[in-house]
Amino acid sequence: MMKGTTAKVLAYKQVYQRIHSAISQGTLKPGERIPSARALAKEMGVARGTVEEGYALLKAEGYLVSKGQAGTHVSEKLIDPSKLRKTNVDTRQAEFAADIKTAEVLPFQLGLPALDAFPRQTWSRMTARCARNIHTDDLAYPSAHGLPQLRVAIAQYLQLSRGVQCEPAQVFITSGYVCSIKWIANVLFNAQSKIGIEDPGYPLTRQVLKNSHFNIISIPVDEDGIKLPTNTQADAIIVTPAHQSPTCVSLSLQRRQALLDWAETKNSWIVEDDYDGEYRHVGLPLPALKSIDTQDRVIYSGTFSKILSPSLRVAYIVVPKSKVSAFEKCAEIYAGNVSGLTQASVLAFMREGHLLRHIQRMRKLYRERRELAVRVFNQVLGGKVSIKPQPGGMHMILKLTDPNIDDLVFSNKMMNAGLFSQGLSQWSSKPVHPSLILSFTNIRTEEECHRLVCRLRDALFEGQ
Amino acid sequence: MMKGTTAKVLAYKQVYQRIHSAISQGTLKPGERIPSARALAKEMGVARGTVEEGYALLKAEGYLVSKGQAGTHVSEKLIDPSKLRKTNVDTRQAEFAADIKTAEVLPFQLGLPALDAFPRQTWSRMTARCARNIHTDDLAYPSAHGLPQLRVAIAQYLQLSRGVQCEPAQVFITSGYVCSIKWIANVLFNAQSKIGIEDPGYPLTRQVLKNSHFNIISIPVDEDGIKLPTNTQADAIIVTPAHQSPTCVSLSLQRRQALLDWAETKNSWIVEDDYDGEYRHVGLPLPALKSIDTQDRVIYSGTFSKILSPSLRVAYIVVPKSKVSAFEKCAEIYAGNVSGLTQASVLAFMREGHLLRHIQRMRKLYRERRELAVRVFNQVLGGKVSIKPQPGGMHMILKLTDPNIDDLVFSNKMMNAGLFSQGLSQWSSKPVHPSLILSFTNIRTEEECHRLVCRLRDALFEGQ
Repeated sequence: MMKGTTAKVLAYKQVYQRIHSAISQGTLKPGERIPSARALAKEMGVARGTVEEGYALLKAEGYLVSKGQAGTHVSEKLIDPSKLRKTNVDTRQAEFAADIKTAEVLPFQLGLPALDAFPRQTWSRMTARCARNIHTDDLAYPSAHGLPQLRVAIAQYLQLSRGVQCEPAQVFITSGYVCSIKWIANVLFNAQSKIGIEDPGYPLTRQVLKNSHFNIISIPVDEDGIKLPTNTQADAIIVTPAHQSPTCVSLSLQRRQALLDWAETKNSWIVEDDYDGEYRHVGLPLPALKSIDTQDRVIYSGTFSKILSPSLRVAYIVVPKSKVSAFEKCAEIYAGNVSGLTQASVLAFMREGHLLRHIQRMRKLYRERRELAVRVFNQVLGGKVSIKPQPGGMHMILKLTDPNIDDLVFSNKMMNAGLFSQGLSQWSSKPVHPSLILSFTNIRTEEECHRLVCRLRDALFEGQ
Repeated sequence: MMKGTTAKVLAYKQVYQRIHSAISQGTLKPGERIPSARALAKEMGVARGTVEEGYALLKAEGYLVSKGQAGTHVSEKLIDPSKLRKTNVDTRQAEFAADIKTAEVLPFQLGLPALDAFPRQTWSRMTARCARNIHTDDLAYPSAHGLPQLRVAIAQYLQLSRGVQCEPAQVFITSGYVCSIKWIANVLFNAQSKIGIEDPGYPLTRQVLKNSHFNIISIPVDEDGIKLPTNTQADAIIVTPAHQSPTCVSLSLQRRQALLDWAETKNSWIVEDDYDGEYRHVGLPLPALKSIDTQDRVIYSGTFSKILSPSLRVAYIVVPKSKVSAFEKCAEIYAGNVSGLTQASVLAFMREGHLLRHIQRMRKLYRERRELAVRVFNQVLGGKVSIKPQPGGMHMILKLTDPNIDDLVFSNKMMNAGLFSQGLSQWSSKPVHPSLILSFTNIRTEEECHRLVCRLRDALFEGQ
């Protein structure tokens, strides 16, 4: 064991070294206040005099300055070492951007709800109340399966809003879609599993499966959704029936039935990713595929990212009745890892009816924002692009009229101009008509929309 | 696509079915209020009259009752169907326990900080303030690497408190230890990797590695910590140097050096799990192993579960400088998934000095509670058990005097008596002297301690 005597001799040097290297590495910046000698002494478990000795040396060398009552600070005369030093950290970021709180949201960014319409006041009131009411037992590990009452509330919500009949024990809380897919893979797939995915389809699904070394089968999508050959040999198919990602077409009733029949015959699973099923712009919201799953072959995957905010990191899965205990075991090792307070806040928000009200408001808002975007795109970009009517969803597909354009080149041009977009070809394994995938959810006004579409035009069609 | 006409004809029936099955499945309970016809009509996108038609049918059949201004409720005369129906859900729980908010914390439960000493008021004030100050951009996806300023704050904290020199870009926020290990495995290990773990050692580490099919090598632990043969062939070793889990011995300086030399020679990695390094009861807190890692072979794994609360689900890793971009890529797929608000609250708590103060208070409290527990155990259980002095940590090892006792049988007896414990043999791959692992962190008073130890005595030594 490290002996106290040796350690004590070196204690003031240790103080010196810690502060010195924090400064020279830029962890402590010029002008920044450092802990009082008393606080650091307690923290390091050394005498206050020892810390003062270390500080004195640093002051003598010009690293620290005393400001009387205002405490001890890093000298402002030092040049910020991070500006001098060439970092030897192999990072993908040009410079560590500590000043940026979160990555900036770009215009047209995919996968985001209308951030300006988030019910901030209500949410902050719920959170503050839940935080005040924390019970001592709530400070221990949250249930690995999810907060029991939240599982009940989600089962009720799914029953009423998505037509899904399930018991609370089938609902598991996860920290997001990728976590949901990992759990499903963990419980239902094995190293030899063949998994069918939609083509075009959500790239992250493909990437997560690929990283786990599953055999991936691409299955084409047409105007009626995924078109599964009946003889397909797969252990599971991952589908987006409400509004196919990215084409936004709805899976027809006939195809839904065929998919369920296939799963029953082959004893395979269907994973229903209902990421934006709530947002339909025309007619009745379609019930979830899971709602007509009489053979219990469908795993339903839902999320609060699209109906509330992705910053919450709360999602859930509804697992087959026959697999509940297997998922319980999986959860007990990997745990959903959503903080107890976050789960309690979502529960309060649902219980008081705020969630249903918010979804209804957003349904109307997205219909309006989509109409606005389509209108302005047509005005500004006339014959250069076309936008098909879509029954629902949170993004749109901008079909480029010229079939010879490379949509990846175009999406890069947009990103360079500070505008988000992805090329449809990035979501497809086969050649597709060049198209851009854009979100309309955060376009707030006609003026803003016009300005953004003009920027897009200048970035893409300048000189054409 | 599903045609509007067919759907409309069936709309009132759909209303009927959703409510009916929610009641018969017990999702809606007798007496519970259901949404107003107006709200459900909006939610389902049907006419209000359609919902009223469905409700009328349910009222006629006795499922629903109107209570005028108080709305429509499930009839209280119905017998709660969950009491009638034998569930066909394959769950490991006897009955879904929606009334229990979180699993009850048992006396002596391992891995928990002192829940009664959690700074609830300060924490709830920080959280409420952060919730009020949410900026629109904060509602998008949080940075996959972690909130940048929190990474800076953790780098500063590690520098000052644990002697670890690192840059913020090396710090990644995860949702817990298992998530940390999965990321490390994802980036640094491959299917053929051999991973050394401590024996005895934390069972969850073994389980997670086993589930991922790595080759596991058990390495013995003695009074100076892990004893690694220099010719060991392993791609990585996972160690708990501060207070070995579970023996609580500290890794000696000589062994630390030998471990680092080994890693350099073999080009292998060392994962330092510093889960409770802050809590040392005697002498100076030991700096982390990472603090003397000049060759950048150590991955440091820390957590807020032990110093604050496991309900937060916030942990972090410090990765080698040469591997930052690889971890960035991993994070961009799997994401730490800690909510933006939780990260902002932890940051505020650290920035205002509450974390250091809390750790100092807990260090004193744990020393006192450990002394109390040792004293009372010795009083009540005299020659039946012995407890070795330990330099630190949050649990203790109760060595059973009788070498013929099976500690697994004893730990089961305790669990049956509502007391938590684990047998040391459950943490070992080789025979060990029978011992029980217990936590003392939540024993608040001498009276409580006495009562609990007597219950333990009655459960284990009754009639002996």
